Amino acid sequence: MNEIFKHVPLYRYLSFCNETGLERTVLDCGAGGDSPSLGLFAQYGYSTYGIEFDPIAIAQAQAYEQERGLQLNIERGDMRNLPFADESFSFVYSYNSIFHMRKDEVSQSLQEMIRTLKPGGLLFVNFLTVNDFRCGEGPHLGDHQYEQFDDDQPVIHSYYTASEADPLFGNMEVLFKEDRTLERIYEGERIRQGFVDYIVKK
Amino acid sequence: MNEIFKHVPLYRYLSFCNETGLERTVLDCGAGGDSPSLGLFAQYGYSTYGIEFDPIAIAQAQAYEQERGLQLNIERGDMRNLPFADESFSFVYSYNSIFHMRKDEVSQSLQEMIRTLKPGGLLFVNFLTVNDFRCGEGPHLGDHQYEQFDDDQPVIHSYYTASEADPLFGNMEVLFKEDRTLERIYEGERIRQGFVDYIVKK
Repeated sequence: MNEIFKHVPLYRYLSFCNETGLERTVLDCGAGGDSPSLGLFAQYGYSTYGIEFDPIAIAQAQAYEQERGLQLNIERGDMRNLPFADESFSFVYSYNSIFHMRKDEVSQSLQEMIRTLKPGGLLFVNFLTVNDFRCGEGPHLGDHQYEQFDDDQPVIHSYYTASEADPLFGNMEVLFKEDRTLERIYEGERIRQGFVDYIVKK
Repeated sequence: MNEIFKHVPLYRYLSFCNETGLERTVLDCGAGGDSPSLGLFAQYGYSTYGIEFDPIAIAQAQAYEQERGLQLNIERGDMRNLPFADESFSFVYSYNSIFHMRKDEVSQSLQEMIRTLKPGGLLFVNFLTVNDFRCGEGPHLGDHQYEQFDDDQPVIHSYYTASEADPLFGNMEVLFKEDRTLERIYEGERIRQGFVDYIVKK
């Protein structure tokens, strides 16, 4: 019985990936944490690679791998400068991660993801939207970029309007796009979050 | 390697269901078709039950079951009058189905789903929203209810605003709600669909 991952939109992305028939190589940008979503791709026979900036998140992923006897190949790195050759992977994604930077850095990271993706390969990326309950919180750096705190650590969050990220994909084909506003209970409080997800073909 | 189902929001619902620790009994209202989502619950050891109004969809589900040696227990029935006793199931859901009726019938069906759900059990249901590209097409019956055609068959579609369905759940606790507008390619055309999904605890 396979583990169910909380990264629900990645089930759709995985389904799209499987249907391409391309070699099953995948890179996750922002791959660390205690439930690394590369584990989902490993369930389906993918060769997995990950980049993670935060050493604690790398250690969490390593503990997960050791418990399950998995080798997800998550290494320390910076998605603004990916340490991989052009067109290395059939599939490159970043889930709930890329928006922890200023928008110029987000754009740079996305270009790196596209660079390392094979022609015909699929990209998944999602962004926070201005519908999120935290949009507006903290010092404003302009253009819906805010200095905020996660777990007492300072972090930038960049928020996008529903169509703002469209031009970042240039002439690539958007196969799927979902603008979603969700309400859930987090630490006893009802919160509203906003995301826009893309699946794009190079 | 488990099959991936296209009914992506049900992965979240399944994860919520698993975490309750309740007995794994589930009813799907509108359960037929060539990829019945009860198959996902069967992967996780659930006793599955389904109601389906359309005989063709039942036959499609039966073919699916026979291919895989599954017994999903999908029978002909009408979700406006469920043939089950009160509080029969830990989990009751309807995915992309309940909105094929007029709104008074949707409300009646939802009351039936709630009736057959055990206290503490979880309900999933989703509605079309007024953001859908077909909202406005065909003869209008009022209140965003339209007479339309699917595969040359006449069908009612009822469309809801983002908060319109909230009162239908009375005092039950909404654990998760997602209002989503998606764009995808369907039969060569880019289409826009709108859904609002609920996970509610009785």
